[in-house]
Amino acid sequence: MEPFDRETAEGLLYTDQYQLSMAQLYYRMGLHERTVQFDHFFRKYPDYGAHKAGYCINAGLEWLVQWMRSARVRDADIEQLRAQQGRTGAQYFADDFLAWLRAYGDFSGVSMASVPEGRVVHPNAPVTVVQGPLAMAQILETPLLNHLNYQTLIATKAARVREAGRGRLLIEFGMRRGPERGANAGARAALIGGADFTSNTGASLALGFPPKGTHAHSMVQAFMALGEGELGAFEAYADVYPDDCLLLVDTVDTLESGIPNAVKVFEKLKRKGHKPMGIRLDSGDLAYLSIQAAKMLNEAGFPEATIFLSSDLDELVLWQILSQIENSAPRYGIEADDVINRLGYGVGTHLITSYGQPALNGVYKLVAVRGENDWVPALKVSESPAKTLNPGYKHVWRVYGNDGHATADLVALHDEQPDEEAELLLHHPSEAGTRRRIRREDIAEIEPMLVEILCEGEVVYDFPGIDEMRAARDADLERLDDGVRRIINPHVYHVSLSRRLWELKQQLIARFGAGD
Amino acid sequence: MEPFDRETAEGLLYTDQYQLSMAQLYYRMGLHERTVQFDHFFRKYPDYGAHKAGYCINAGLEWLVQWMRSARVRDADIEQLRAQQGRTGAQYFADDFLAWLRAYGDFSGVSMASVPEGRVVHPNAPVTVVQGPLAMAQILETPLLNHLNYQTLIATKAARVREAGRGRLLIEFGMRRGPERGANAGARAALIGGADFTSNTGASLALGFPPKGTHAHSMVQAFMALGEGELGAFEAYADVYPDDCLLLVDTVDTLESGIPNAVKVFEKLKRKGHKPMGIRLDSGDLAYLSIQAAKMLNEAGFPEATIFLSSDLDELVLWQILSQIENSAPRYGIEADDVINRLGYGVGTHLITSYGQPALNGVYKLVAVRGENDWVPALKVSESPAKTLNPGYKHVWRVYGNDGHATADLVALHDEQPDEEAELLLHHPSEAGTRRRIRREDIAEIEPMLVEILCEGEVVYDFPGIDEMRAARDADLERLDDGVRRIINPHVYHVSLSRRLWELKQQLIARFGAGD
Repeated sequence: MEPFDRETAEGLLYTDQYQLSMAQLYYRMGLHERTVQFDHFFRKYPDYGAHKAGYCINAGLEWLVQWMRSARVRDADIEQLRAQQGRTGAQYFADDFLAWLRAYGDFSGVSMASVPEGRVVHPNAPVTVVQGPLAMAQILETPLLNHLNYQTLIATKAARVREAGRGRLLIEFGMRRGPERGANAGARAALIGGADFTSNTGASLALGFPPKGTHAHSMVQAFMALGEGELGAFEAYADVYPDDCLLLVDTVDTLESGIPNAVKVFEKLKRKGHKPMGIRLDSGDLAYLSIQAAKMLNEAGFPEATIFLSSDLDELVLWQILSQIENSAPRYGIEADDVINRLGYGVGTHLITSYGQPALNGVYKLVAVRGENDWVPALKVSESPAKTLNPGYKHVWRVYGNDGHATADLVALHDEQPDEEAELLLHHPSEAGTRRRIRREDIAEIEPMLVEILCEGEVVYDFPGIDEMRAARDADLERLDDGVRRIINPHVYHVSLSRRLWELKQQLIARFGAGD
Repeated sequence: MEPFDRETAEGLLYTDQYQLSMAQLYYRMGLHERTVQFDHFFRKYPDYGAHKAGYCINAGLEWLVQWMRSARVRDADIEQLRAQQGRTGAQYFADDFLAWLRAYGDFSGVSMASVPEGRVVHPNAPVTVVQGPLAMAQILETPLLNHLNYQTLIATKAARVREAGRGRLLIEFGMRRGPERGANAGARAALIGGADFTSNTGASLALGFPPKGTHAHSMVQAFMALGEGELGAFEAYADVYPDDCLLLVDTVDTLESGIPNAVKVFEKLKRKGHKPMGIRLDSGDLAYLSIQAAKMLNEAGFPEATIFLSSDLDELVLWQILSQIENSAPRYGIEADDVINRLGYGVGTHLITSYGQPALNGVYKLVAVRGENDWVPALKVSESPAKTLNPGYKHVWRVYGNDGHATADLVALHDEQPDEEAELLLHHPSEAGTRRRIRREDIAEIEPMLVEILCEGEVVYDFPGIDEMRAARDADLERLDDGVRRIINPHVYHVSLSRRLWELKQQLIARFGAGD
């Protein structure tokens, strides 16, 4: 058994083979140091089948930058590349290119601007803008997308689950079903997007958060196999964790055994001056059981005990559970709020995999090449107009109306100043006739969304902590229309082009042909 | 920007917090070194919505064992744990437990048996069996599931895509949409399950495979922005890679521009004595375009040029494309096989995320506790009979009929020898009346499926290379009924209990109560 060489696998070669093939071609053509611009953006909100997102929460940037700054090409990597053969057995990467890659294969020439992590972002507007030498900017495509797609996907799902859970305690529980080492990135993204904590101990501690958890069925089973039963297991847990006693009550029978046993243990704790924490429900009809559990806990004198729910939860399931509690609780003689206000949620599989939509379709497209004197816009005309690129070196602005809500994201050329214009003309990105005028007096604020992150490889940005990202997230969510926030069938937020960008795009389509 | 501390995040603390809470409890109760057995198994085949799997391909074991052998708890980790506070601000993990964890927090007491990687596996039969001291076997739950669930999920998807693609060249292309670092595990699993190669350069080289790829739209765009056009881009590529020239032909217009330009370049290459490799189609109606491309390439004198397909492929899409080619090709005056036999596939997003079903529901359950003289079986009775555990220390046997096909997996107690019995009685795992008898003369072979991997922390297994895993996979797939192999609505393979195991399970259910 030879250990997998993570240094090779996670270094500069953490990219697709064709990026290196193209880099060698650019080197051969003398184009490898030509300055270019790539835009990173995503094409569509996640669509989970039964429901879809109306916004995304941006995440992954800091870890991408950490990778960029640590990714080195080592001698061993160069030798691996030198050993690669083409179809005829000839050396695939030539020595001169490899020598160049060994000497210059880093991101010190790359500048980058981005929307900060935690902020609400929308499709088809640049989230990250990369400028740099063609070869290295090309190699960056795969690792950039790999870092940003997944974390943004998971942060978005977490925000939705938080929304459905009405802001009650949310713990990310997905490591066991998560995508191997990607589970650490998933935990981070969940913390940015909506989870208060994660059960993932290592990632949580490395990020400065206390990891959270309760106990498993196996603990109760072990006590049962040793002849001590569920009550024995609960008593042991209460002995060891008298002030953090949250008991999993569904190993045998929730209502007949689990909760009565928990209550016995809680009463003992109370007599000793401890405040029991609560119970966890991990199977069955969680709405019905929550109501019954709340009643039983109230009657036993534990009205503040938490009822923590887990078991394949997601935003729709939570929404349904809370709706059912609201409808049914009064019938059982308890107020719905008395149940709901003590809930907490552990969300695992469906959060860390973004169940229903496990991929964000983020792309990284060449939009401009530096010519003698100025930027030459690049275009890829698609057979579907919505997929035709927005060309050129661009900025993104967010327009807020007088009600404080964001009304559109405006993509404009870099030398435009929409904040200084008397009237904004917002063009639909692909439909010729569709546009919208907003007068200056109807605009409260026009905010530039991209901030400088890297200037020729140097970090020129103060990365915010996760708490700061969460504050940005909450502020952005507050400034979305309720229709855009809702978890099912959300209103479509406007992402528009400036007049000049629209005209440039039409000129280029006319020049290069409009596809089918 | 403080780099994420991967040593903490990927070491022994790469587990859920509650595992450590339970470990401390076991330590406090003097149970931490009690020998126990956990079974790892999955409950259901992946169900992708429109279609589902009839088998899984086992993967992830070697990387799990590598993690187990390298996972150490460092002083810094202990200090992180020591700083954790309970609700009242008191130290959550006590010093004596932390001292024990620092000294004994490794897997040197753990023994493990498993089905080898690459082999076909089925639900509700143990895939991995862990024996060891309770505390460390408990801590292992999360990392074990994290390593095995994801790779088995992806290997299974890759096997299905390979099946639908009729064994033609398959390259894993998913890194950019993959789950951050998990993309490396995904690439490995894809190579085990069905992909011939991956585009993921670092992971591929670290695994000893040549990474594969072509070129991107951005290369054509860059040449267009510089005024050279698609043909210029193709010529440059042919100059640099004359013997590996595979051209992406859909940047401008596949039939009007891409293929005619590719043919021009191929003709030049041919005149110089090179053999062009082929083209890649990444958008549009891939079945129709494949037929047209094959015709155009044939007419131009390149009947052997590959047609490589990409663009959100999965097993259903491939199956549809091949069906459409079979139906339509003759109408365009070309034989379907002349198109199909030159196809290759790049499968990205849908493979690396197991699109449609992004999680395997593998679990790790306590099944036995070592008593004074023997094993005491542990049970978790579930409200759904199908989820009630199979208790006790068990083995798994695969039964092959005289036609050479596997007819059932038999789960039996460890001291049973089904290969020595005159007649096998196969019990349905949860339905009392449902069973099946097989006479010895109708059985060609009874194969024990679990092999010893670790004996008290020492590796006692010669891990196979990926080629060997693939051979095992192909042999297993050959021995499945066609109905089990098919990609839509597969027959259900039998996973049965031995008579003694069935009786033990019923006794325990009677003793602990049968739930609802």
